[in-house]
Amino acid sequence: MDTTLYLGKIQSFAQGHWHTPQTTGRPVYHAVTGEPIAEISSEGLDFKGMLDYARTVGGPNLRSMTFHERARMLKALALYLSERKAAFYEIAQATGATRQDAWLDIDGGIGTFFVYASKGRRELPNEHFLLEGEPETISRGGTFLGHHLLVPLEGVAVHINAFNFPCWGMLEKLAPTLLAGMPAIVKPASVTAYVAERIVRAMLDSGLLPEGALQLICGSVGDLFDHLTGQDVVTFTGSAETGLRLKSHPTVLREAVRFNLEADSLNFSMLGPDVTPDLPEFELFIQEVIREMTIKAGQRCTAIRRTLVPAEKIDAVLEALSERLRQVIVGNPAHERVQMGPLVSRDQVAEVRSRLEVLAEAGELLCGGGQDGFQVVGADPNRGAFFPPTLLYCARPFEHAAPHTVEAFGPVNTVMPYQDLDEAIRLAKMGRGSLVGSLITTDPEIARTVVLGTAAYHGRLLVLNRECARENTGHGAPLPHLVHGGPGRAGGGEELGGLRGLLRYMQRTALQGAPTMLTAICKEWMPGAAQPTSEVHPFRKYFEDLTIGETLTTARRTVTEADVVNFAGISGDFFYAHMDELAACESPIFQGRVAHGYFVLSAAAGLFVDPRPGPVLANYGLENLRFTKPVRPGDTIQAKLTVKKKIPREGDPPSGIVVWHVDVLNQHQEVVASYDILTLVALRPNAATA
Amino acid sequence: MDTTLYLGKIQSFAQGHWHTPQTTGRPVYHAVTGEPIAEISSEGLDFKGMLDYARTVGGPNLRSMTFHERARMLKALALYLSERKAAFYEIAQATGATRQDAWLDIDGGIGTFFVYASKGRRELPNEHFLLEGEPETISRGGTFLGHHLLVPLEGVAVHINAFNFPCWGMLEKLAPTLLAGMPAIVKPASVTAYVAERIVRAMLDSGLLPEGALQLICGSVGDLFDHLTGQDVVTFTGSAETGLRLKSHPTVLREAVRFNLEADSLNFSMLGPDVTPDLPEFELFIQEVIREMTIKAGQRCTAIRRTLVPAEKIDAVLEALSERLRQVIVGNPAHERVQMGPLVSRDQVAEVRSRLEVLAEAGELLCGGGQDGFQVVGADPNRGAFFPPTLLYCARPFEHAAPHTVEAFGPVNTVMPYQDLDEAIRLAKMGRGSLVGSLITTDPEIARTVVLGTAAYHGRLLVLNRECARENTGHGAPLPHLVHGGPGRAGGGEELGGLRGLLRYMQRTALQGAPTMLTAICKEWMPGAAQPTSEVHPFRKYFEDLTIGETLTTARRTVTEADVVNFAGISGDFFYAHMDELAACESPIFQGRVAHGYFVLSAAAGLFVDPRPGPVLANYGLENLRFTKPVRPGDTIQAKLTVKKKIPREGDPPSGIVVWHVDVLNQHQEVVASYDILTLVALRPNAATA
Repeated sequence: MDTTLYLGKIQSFAQGHWHTPQTTGRPVYHAVTGEPIAEISSEGLDFKGMLDYARTVGGPNLRSMTFHERARMLKALALYLSERKAAFYEIAQATGATRQDAWLDIDGGIGTFFVYASKGRRELPNEHFLLEGEPETISRGGTFLGHHLLVPLEGVAVHINAFNFPCWGMLEKLAPTLLAGMPAIVKPASVTAYVAERIVRAMLDSGLLPEGALQLICGSVGDLFDHLTGQDVVTFTGSAETGLRLKSHPTVLREAVRFNLEADSLNFSMLGPDVTPDLPEFELFIQEVIREMTIKAGQRCTAIRRTLVPAEKIDAVLEALSERLRQVIVGNPAHERVQMGPLVSRDQVAEVRSRLEVLAEAGELLCGGGQDGFQVVGADPNRGAFFPPTLLYCARPFEHAAPHTVEAFGPVNTVMPYQDLDEAIRLAKMGRGSLVGSLITTDPEIARTVVLGTAAYHGRLLVLNRECARENTGHGAPLPHLVHGGPGRAGGGEELGGLRGLLRYMQRTALQGAPTMLTAICKEWMPGAAQPTSEVHPFRKYFEDLTIGETLTTARRTVTEADVVNFAGISGDFFYAHMDELAACESPIFQGRVAHGYFVLSAAAGLFVDPRPGPVLANYGLENLRFTKPVRPGDTIQAKLTVKKKIPREGDPPSGIVVWHVDVLNQHQEVVASYDILTLVALRPNAATA
Repeated sequence: MDTTLYLGKIQSFAQGHWHTPQTTGRPVYHAVTGEPIAEISSEGLDFKGMLDYARTVGGPNLRSMTFHERARMLKALALYLSERKAAFYEIAQATGATRQDAWLDIDGGIGTFFVYASKGRRELPNEHFLLEGEPETISRGGTFLGHHLLVPLEGVAVHINAFNFPCWGMLEKLAPTLLAGMPAIVKPASVTAYVAERIVRAMLDSGLLPEGALQLICGSVGDLFDHLTGQDVVTFTGSAETGLRLKSHPTVLREAVRFNLEADSLNFSMLGPDVTPDLPEFELFIQEVIREMTIKAGQRCTAIRRTLVPAEKIDAVLEALSERLRQVIVGNPAHERVQMGPLVSRDQVAEVRSRLEVLAEAGELLCGGGQDGFQVVGADPNRGAFFPPTLLYCARPFEHAAPHTVEAFGPVNTVMPYQDLDEAIRLAKMGRGSLVGSLITTDPEIARTVVLGTAAYHGRLLVLNRECARENTGHGAPLPHLVHGGPGRAGGGEELGGLRGLLRYMQRTALQGAPTMLTAICKEWMPGAAQPTSEVHPFRKYFEDLTIGETLTTARRTVTEADVVNFAGISGDFFYAHMDELAACESPIFQGRVAHGYFVLSAAAGLFVDPRPGPVLANYGLENLRFTKPVRPGDTIQAKLTVKKKIPREGDPPSGIVVWHVDVLNQHQEVVASYDILTLVALRPNAATA
């Protein structure tokens, strides 16, 4: 390792330019060597100017892109960063990160971009706004509808990140922000800001971001908070105290600035009462606790702080944990053998040590502890920020507040016994709101009891058993698909969760009006809206030529007894309601023979399909089918096929998705079946080759 | 009207008992006569005790009920209140409410209960928790899944309500609270608390609420806020100042208490540039503005405060509005001719008058105004809280802050001109976040521009034209189906919105684990979970006897060319991919003839249907169908039918909903089609008759 690494003044990126502070900044130290490696200051930045720039340049630029365009941008950025990640891995060592820690941080962060890129293209429309849920019928006559739409907020997302995952912590917030269409100002924690700066620099160098989409503050945020408005969003990850101070800012409160707080919490892991030491789940549990204590040297908001163990298994657990912990090799992450690196700084060591003192009053120190003198590989323990894996045992957890309220943000964990599941659940809740809890059990009933008993206090719950032993992502890992955040002490925030993560950066607006008007505004056909007749059979029209709402009303077809019999013969479906006159008459539902539902569906297709090759390439799916009235021999049916929605896409063959709404009517103009079919429709040949 | 009405000390309901304050309370005055009609004080209440009682008695009682049980409770309460509403109407007159105002308040409030009752039974499971969205596949091998569940918070919902709609304002919050499974403590605004007290009393008298579900504080909330936790929710409707004070409470901030703020806002109504005075939309606009100014004497958070009019139509609009406003009959709501009642109190008159002074500096007073001497029917204008409909004209709206920042919470409205749509949108946004905006236009392009241009600043947008003229519910009316709340100045809160309204009272928790484990916890079959073989054909089992995950694997069937031809003949679907060898071979998608998708569906039904009469009564729908691989003549298919979900229901015939997941496989065990079918399955005959 290059022990002479010195990075100088960390730059900020503001209003389109890299900015170097003129004055001397606060020193930032190497976690392993204790040497200064950089200095940091945001002196000289025009914070109000940065906000204005994001609002007037970045916001409009991002909002001019569709969700699919933004998703493609995220994917390109992820690829760009992936190609450069070796350099990020190298510099991350200075923060104390082992290769495994850096993988979680760097590959984990880039992976979040990939997941949002993919979800953006698969689950979002190629539009500038989003419709949520189904239209709400709010009038009897159907001339007045409601629907909900989501548009990006017109302000700035200010992300204030924690020191522990300078890459992931930044990218997991940027992915939903940028996909939603909001510009961001990122303020990394000073002590590891040099990693964030490298990654921001790479993203800006890529030329993939539109102007104004991303700015960086290395150092304090100055008077930025004074200039926030209700169109801005602040997210904060870090200590509860700092979070509380920021969210109490008068401007945040007065302007109703959205504030998302994610604070460390006293997360639990529980060994189920059913798990005996001979079961593979016991080993799973021990491994999970060890892993969570040592990853990033326990500096993880989601780390296991409280380990709940059935009283009769306390000895076995303490023995297994202590033995493994003593084998953990602590040292310089540049050394291959090293399993756990230092804390981020000696200040952090002092902080953990002081918290440990409080915790130790409530329990017995079984291994580790704040004293110097433990073995450190490849570094000077008196200069680097090393701290040993530390296990405490609190025999009377209901009598002590400390294990449930004091968090030592390092490799520190308190084991506590419980007598029965009720006690275990009460202990779990004593954290007063946590990011995550985990349960290791083989018993689904125990799992259901613990999950439903603790869910109100937890943002995420993991149930581990042998079935998912190999593939599970672990107690501590937030995933882009799932929400991350917790109630109460954990801050009450929520991030990620797939597309839920975008809602934080968007305004939900209820839209009311006449169906035809709402159809024109939202570009999606709504029930009751006009259904102008297609001049040409719509299956003969290319994607671009179809208009929302245009409708084909088919010829009619009289359904006869012969149809029912023939359809039964071909399908093999001789259900009594179709084939047994006596039983069908006795059925309170059918009161006589009815045609097969799938016959109605098939006959409707027969009525509207245009058989010749044409732009409609394939029907690949169907949604929302309801059979609303029986069709009996003698009834005459007819279909109405309406263009409901068009979703441009990329890919081969050159085509878009068209969703058609189908109503099948009987001779009384009653709807007998209603559904949406999903088709691929070719683009105009010239457009496709252009 | 009984002018001697005197109600005495308004009681609170705490910890299961009605409580009368021992000391003299603050007087509450009749809005029409100015006479004292009650006194109010919460002196002597044990606020911490009330919270504890709700948490330990009300919460567990409500959580022991399923969503359907709570929904039925709401419906029964709504019916109970409906039968007694004549008394509520009568007492509401003392608040100054006309019959129309009281209808909005009382029938509107009860209607919210009905809507939530109905949505609860139709859209929620008959369970204690809720699954949200679809399971997330977070592992390649499929042994590790994620899903989101929602459970009720274990604290108390504290509802602090505004004076203007003492019934609706309370019930619109209680409906989602109780349906979600949380107990509530209601604190009505003092000046109209006697109406809320009557309604709470009726609900409690009904015996329909479980113990501890509802408490009432008439008077101040004392030290209640000091005892809140992260499991509690506070909702506040009222002035921005009071809201800011409450949400800044140190306990609220420190404990991350969920806080929903809904404040008055400077809502706009815009006349589209296309609307000329000869169009019906012009009259619609005039009527809407008049209606919104006079309903509840303009004391409505959603009232139109800023009226945006194309510059060239200003004269026509001002003339029409002034003329109508002068005809509005103000007075005692007991008189049939009266169209607008008094404000709620003389304090409120003073308040509106002082705001009007500020507004009048920015514009010209066209009618009304704060001076005495206007005509009041059936009441003494010097004693009642009367205020005339007041219209201002601000000719240079970009030069004055007052019309966009100062709200006179009464029948006061400022008209302002705009030159083009861009200006109109900028003016709309100058409210810095509003509950609602409305646009009257005939032109869908104008509507789309205004909606997408203003949505980020508004919680609701109404587009009015002749098509919905008769059925629209008006600019000012929040509906239970649609979200109510707005960003920025409007407080940044959100209420109602159908089932979205429940989320405020529930914790969302990401659940991770093996598919079989998650299936057991959630009682819904998840992809990859065990599919134990049904010993008996599942169509021969009653609802109670079906177990989640049990699976029928059918016999196989070879699909032949004859099937394709016969199916085309019966359905009439001769699409080339099925019937035209040449064209099918040329298709990049099919590359040869394929069987009809609906044939695959029908043949699969033929494979799994048991033809005899049995517990499966009907297949009434289908969801999530995807054709994932083509089926060609010569392929052999087979279906797997799995019990995915069971939804108990009430109704005739006695039955429950069973959702079955179907995978149709080919000879390579590849899935060719996958979907969910919805069936009604009979309950066991003895259970049904019991």
